[in-house]
Amino acid sequence: MSLTVVGSIAFDSVRTPFGERDRMLGGAAVHFALAASFFTEVRPVGPVGGDFGPDEFAVLESRGIATNDIEVIEGGQSFFWRGRYEYDLNVAHTEDTQLGVFGDFEPKLSDAAKAADVVFLANIQPDLQRQVRGQCSEARFSALDSMNLWIETTRDSLLAAISDVDCVIINDAEIRQLTGESNLARGARTIMSHGPRAVVAKQGEYGAALFTENSFFALPGYPLEDVRDPTGAGDSFAGGFLGYIDSHPGATDDACLRRAMGYGTVLASFNVEEFGTERVTRLTREEIEGRFEELVSMTRFDPIPVPSE
Amino acid sequence: MSLTVVGSIAFDSVRTPFGERDRMLGGAAVHFALAASFFTEVRPVGPVGGDFGPDEFAVLESRGIATNDIEVIEGGQSFFWRGRYEYDLNVAHTEDTQLGVFGDFEPKLSDAAKAADVVFLANIQPDLQRQVRGQCSEARFSALDSMNLWIETTRDSLLAAISDVDCVIINDAEIRQLTGESNLARGARTIMSHGPRAVVAKQGEYGAALFTENSFFALPGYPLEDVRDPTGAGDSFAGGFLGYIDSHPGATDDACLRRAMGYGTVLASFNVEEFGTERVTRLTREEIEGRFEELVSMTRFDPIPVPSE
Repeated sequence: MSLTVVGSIAFDSVRTPFGERDRMLGGAAVHFALAASFFTEVRPVGPVGGDFGPDEFAVLESRGIATNDIEVIEGGQSFFWRGRYEYDLNVAHTEDTQLGVFGDFEPKLSDAAKAADVVFLANIQPDLQRQVRGQCSEARFSALDSMNLWIETTRDSLLAAISDVDCVIINDAEIRQLTGESNLARGARTIMSHGPRAVVAKQGEYGAALFTENSFFALPGYPLEDVRDPTGAGDSFAGGFLGYIDSHPGATDDACLRRAMGYGTVLASFNVEEFGTERVTRLTREEIEGRFEELVSMTRFDPIPVPSE
Repeated sequence: MSLTVVGSIAFDSVRTPFGERDRMLGGAAVHFALAASFFTEVRPVGPVGGDFGPDEFAVLESRGIATNDIEVIEGGQSFFWRGRYEYDLNVAHTEDTQLGVFGDFEPKLSDAAKAADVVFLANIQPDLQRQVRGQCSEARFSALDSMNLWIETTRDSLLAAISDVDCVIINDAEIRQLTGESNLARGARTIMSHGPRAVVAKQGEYGAALFTENSFFALPGYPLEDVRDPTGAGDSFAGGFLGYIDSHPGATDDACLRRAMGYGTVLASFNVEEFGTERVTRLTREEIEGRFEELVSMTRFDPIPVPSE
């Protein structure tokens, strides 16, 4: 059991209708790793600048996350993102992105990171995703995320990266953009024709859907009356999803993937309740299991015999 | 067991990327009644013009629908709607609406219609909804739909109509608009504070969510690779939902409402597979049950003990 994730390790400045925070610990690999840390040993890979200090490492290490594949570039600046959300929390408006040390990133994985059983390639340039995937040659399950930028600018590389993974986890709008199919089921099937055997369509507040060759499964978002900061929801989902999969060696059948969808949904729901990593860093496994059970009951309905027509 | 619905009985001209049809039988009460007809005796109330002839009546009667509360205004024109859908089938663009005889509609219900056990007030002017609701004084369960127009122009009347029903079935964007709450769970709670004990949020391709005082339930849309005409999906949903409820006298507990959500989802999915009423008029109860069972399996996941952290 071990899970390697490559992606941004960052500082985020976020403003929502419910408050704001400056230079919080953030980034896809951070949100992913924190979520996955409740299930397995997780190892984020990526560069940070000298501004990433003991306090940031301490947050990760307090959750048992292996940090020795985080490369500190002294004199460099960590990836930085500034964004805001309007009243409609479904749409992030980016105000500033500074790649910093991420601009020259060349993934060099430790032997431990290369030996991962499960790999997640968070949303970074697809050629970097392929390099990391290639180094983790023994992984039994791999997944990637992406975004509109790479679909538009590096489509062929992205398709090559997709052909190397078992599962694609992206927003449903990105499925449509990538495949040119307005119908989501057709779009998912098109992606699977490139190699992956599973596609997870992230649907924001509506939840997520799982497409496999012979099965469809969908979960609503966990209903929350207070969502304060959606940043990192998708990566928290992926962390819960792949963390659970890694914790069940050998099993990636539909039943396992569906439970993984449940844990992804639960981790995403906790993530958005507060800003940045605030909520997940004091989360407990008991809280996760409690919300998972709730989610089971919120989606359960049973047929009974009905009067004939 | 009997179900009265008031709403438009209309002709629709529809264009989608997959074809077009001119002056099809349509309207909220028609789509609702056809869907509900698989479960119970249903009685649409509303006016039509002299252009509504034997062919149109025959479609309804072939499904056992009681048509004697459809009032024919000779010399008048039936309600007419012309719309188109772009590649994104989620958004209807209205090109023409002609109220015709609906402009002077004053609901006069037969004794049979008044004696309904279940009532659906489809999307019409809220004062008309209240008149019909008042005439069906013995209904054990009532529900209404509405739209942005009435929220903007007759808000107080709409709130009064809402306070008279057990269940509100509207789009999630309308919940937000009506309540001023961007958060759907809060918006649903606000609606329930006006009287209804259940709120169904229709979410287009994402399915539908059910809010009751102490419970949340959600179902995805049934995944279809071919959606040809979304017109009437919401009313078909309501027809399956309330038709099932009417077929279970006495039961409107959460378990019943959840199954009703399932039947609503199934009827909506068949409705959109072809234009207008084409698919539902040759649907069978066996097909409905088959898709219902599929929907149960598409949403089922089971917790198993997981390794501790």
